Amino acid sequence: MAKKLTSREKDYSQWYNELVQFADLAENSGVRGCMVIKPYGFAIWEKMQAELDRMFKETGHENAYFPLFIPKSYFSKEASHVNGFAKECAVVTHYRLKNDPDGKGIIVDPDAKLDEELIVRPTSETIIWDTYRKWIQSYRDLPILINQWANVVRWEMRTRLFLRTTEFLWQEGHTAHATKEEALDETKQMINIYAKFAEGFMAMPVVIGTKTEGERFAGALETYSIEALMQDGKALQAGTSHFLGQNFAKAFDVKFATKEGKQEYVWASSWGVSTRLMGALIMTHSDDVGLVLPPKLAPYQVVIIPIYKGDKQLEDVSVVALKVKKELEDLGVSVKFDNRDTHKPGWKFAEYELKGVPLRLALGNRDLENGTIEIARRDTLEKETFQISDIGNKVVHLLDKIQENLYTKATTFREEKTYTANTYEEFKELIKKGGFVYAQWDGTSETEEKIKQDTKATIRCIPEDSVDEEGVCVYSGNKSERKVLFAKAY
Amino acid sequence: MAKKLTSREKDYSQWYNELVQFADLAENSGVRGCMVIKPYGFAIWEKMQAELDRMFKETGHENAYFPLFIPKSYFSKEASHVNGFAKECAVVTHYRLKNDPDGKGIIVDPDAKLDEELIVRPTSETIIWDTYRKWIQSYRDLPILINQWANVVRWEMRTRLFLRTTEFLWQEGHTAHATKEEALDETKQMINIYAKFAEGFMAMPVVIGTKTEGERFAGALETYSIEALMQDGKALQAGTSHFLGQNFAKAFDVKFATKEGKQEYVWASSWGVSTRLMGALIMTHSDDVGLVLPPKLAPYQVVIIPIYKGDKQLEDVSVVALKVKKELEDLGVSVKFDNRDTHKPGWKFAEYELKGVPLRLALGNRDLENGTIEIARRDTLEKETFQISDIGNKVVHLLDKIQENLYTKATTFREEKTYTANTYEEFKELIKKGGFVYAQWDGTSETEEKIKQDTKATIRCIPEDSVDEEGVCVYSGNKSERKVLFAKAY
Repeated sequence: MAKKLTSREKDYSQWYNELVQFADLAENSGVRGCMVIKPYGFAIWEKMQAELDRMFKETGHENAYFPLFIPKSYFSKEASHVNGFAKECAVVTHYRLKNDPDGKGIIVDPDAKLDEELIVRPTSETIIWDTYRKWIQSYRDLPILINQWANVVRWEMRTRLFLRTTEFLWQEGHTAHATKEEALDETKQMINIYAKFAEGFMAMPVVIGTKTEGERFAGALETYSIEALMQDGKALQAGTSHFLGQNFAKAFDVKFATKEGKQEYVWASSWGVSTRLMGALIMTHSDDVGLVLPPKLAPYQVVIIPIYKGDKQLEDVSVVALKVKKELEDLGVSVKFDNRDTHKPGWKFAEYELKGVPLRLALGNRDLENGTIEIARRDTLEKETFQISDIGNKVVHLLDKIQENLYTKATTFREEKTYTANTYEEFKELIKKGGFVYAQWDGTSETEEKIKQDTKATIRCIPEDSVDEEGVCVYSGNKSERKVLFAKAY
Repeated sequence: MAKKLTSREKDYSQWYNELVQFADLAENSGVRGCMVIKPYGFAIWEKMQAELDRMFKETGHENAYFPLFIPKSYFSKEASHVNGFAKECAVVTHYRLKNDPDGKGIIVDPDAKLDEELIVRPTSETIIWDTYRKWIQSYRDLPILINQWANVVRWEMRTRLFLRTTEFLWQEGHTAHATKEEALDETKQMINIYAKFAEGFMAMPVVIGTKTEGERFAGALETYSIEALMQDGKALQAGTSHFLGQNFAKAFDVKFATKEGKQEYVWASSWGVSTRLMGALIMTHSDDVGLVLPPKLAPYQVVIIPIYKGDKQLEDVSVVALKVKKELEDLGVSVKFDNRDTHKPGWKFAEYELKGVPLRLALGNRDLENGTIEIARRDTLEKETFQISDIGNKVVHLLDKIQENLYTKATTFREEKTYTANTYEEFKELIKKGGFVYAQWDGTSETEEKIKQDTKATIRCIPEDSVDEEGVCVYSGNKSERKVLFAKAY
């Protein structure tokens, strides 16, 4: 019997933790806060990487690689950045171990102390802008459009698999431009690419908007984010794109000669998404039976399970199953044929439901006689038996339909959980219920902070499609110019 | 004018360092021993990764990800491993910085000292086998065939771009098996895959063999390597595959229940190649003009350069150039059209020769009239003008030919530089000249060490195709059973 999950209703957080482990996505390691991403989980992340990488390259970006370590002094160069990032981090102070003279294993060699400590990168703006100084002399060297796939470390006190881990995997884009407009356009382009990926591949609807000053990236003039709504009514920030102005260029003295021969500071953007997207994916679609994956990100989209008694029947069924596999693969569908004799069909059914494989085909002796095959959708758990001759069309059609259905379902859920609050009483009630809450805000950090203390809700973003709409702040009663999006968040 | 390289004859080492930088492959960073891999260099590495990853997956391996940090105590568990790997490494001792009370930037917070230091992984056997213990209970859980693409850190005193850096990128495979035979087969399979990659994609001939005890991986019972010969007559170890026996299973207590219900320790292999392959690629094919790339690993295989005067001519030439680009891309050829108006054609010619683009097409006004185009091969620097209608066949044919020619050339070079020494005088003379030297060896570490002290030559490997051939050791005069491969090495 496959492992049984705690229901979402009973304990959402427990359900999530169990699902991540039971579906073989990830687990905690022997190192505090660091996870092991297991092959099945990593295969989903690889699919995400491949699509994002393609989208980055199509828009003119190139990959490169910068050092894991950043000298401590680099962080001090950009004033607000240091406060945001150089605090909770892994610090390398020594470069050698030696045998314990008392014979008890190994100890840090006190003679091998570094002159300057190295920080394991929590993000790479500083080391990259230190490098860009050498690369940029004139307007001819611009723009620089670089992305890096890398691991980063932030010393988190409370960690959860995928959602918040000490080490995580991500991509970070770092671009350099001759003008403010170009840097701003890039910043917006990238948040739109993230939204397109989230909606088109993860089947996860998102709200695009800008962050308030208090929630901005340390060192940014403007931070764009995409915000998704999880099944428990909490928001999840799924990607950010920052307009950095000339802050890092000034901190690292990166100037360029304009066409007119003047020296000017370079304009910058940076943007990233991480393995946190795995958490978002899980919490958007999965159910009490297990993981539900959109076909576009499933490591295999179809699993074929043979139903048989004895070697002869397995052999007969296998011949047909392998033909089906080949036919589907020729259509670009990824297929696993699970002919392991160590597990019963029932166990396998449960296992692949737990793992969220979009379509399950079951093929038995009776099917061979009738020329039929059974198909089961993971998203609806519906089963159907049909003529095997029609398999190609059927599978391709259903995969499209599942992808679409997941997006529609998640969008409907979000719409049902999106509210507008006109009074603070209403606001508190709605936040307690969970969901996205639109409300007028007076634009001050003070109000934002008070609402947070009071309700644990934060301003997720000022949505890009928000309209000028005069009113009064739901909290302070002061004048307000538009509604912003509040929620409790991961 | 593009930058002019020091010739190989004059100073091979200087030539290498300049080439890596002038061709935009990599550069040193502000962090001692850590490199920045620039977009053009990284694009080559991505091509390598893609091919290797495909070969790994075709042989049943899956990717996963394990933590960057390893608790210090893990290293002490495997006795020989600790001596090999836990010495020169980056040690994380603290997890927080704070503002300097004297107002001078930031300092390490003494209150945030870790109870147990963390080592930045120099290789991941220990953390992975600590994880496998949880994954393996019975023979049904075996084999485990996992690979990880990751960064690793070894605190090197003398570093050189790609060849030896403090941080480098690599892949490390870690497999677990029920039997010794299976683990050994896997070890051999992987060294053969590396050889196939080196020869088939890098166009670099290699010798496959086993390492002597003194040169083995710390913790392995047997190490297989592929050894290539660089243009300066020095050997370069390009990949290794280790048969680890039950050493790590015993150190981390990883047992499994056999079919018969007995408890046995698991058998293991590990194998890896790194960004060092970039150094091998550069030093195998490049010349005094610049980089030479095999078409199968070139970021773009063809560059098209327009020759024109004025906007009108550029426009006319571009129409044809873009048609050619499209036609070649449809044939699976990667093409860059460099229509930048900021650089002259002559500058571009030099630039792409420096960057090793396999084929250069030049297209001018005269060509448009005649229906011709000029093609130049990077490997031979030969030029030819031919009918543009024939472009598809011509380019595809030439790319195949260049790939083949590079392999043949490198193989001929290696054969010319491969010697057999019958006396120690002869041996010393040959080693001084540079190249691969086969010689009888008595099988003792003592002799191996003395030869190394005397000549700087090491036993690169005991080639897998070496035959039993009784004789006397070239150094000691003692009985010897076969010839082994000596060389000075990177």
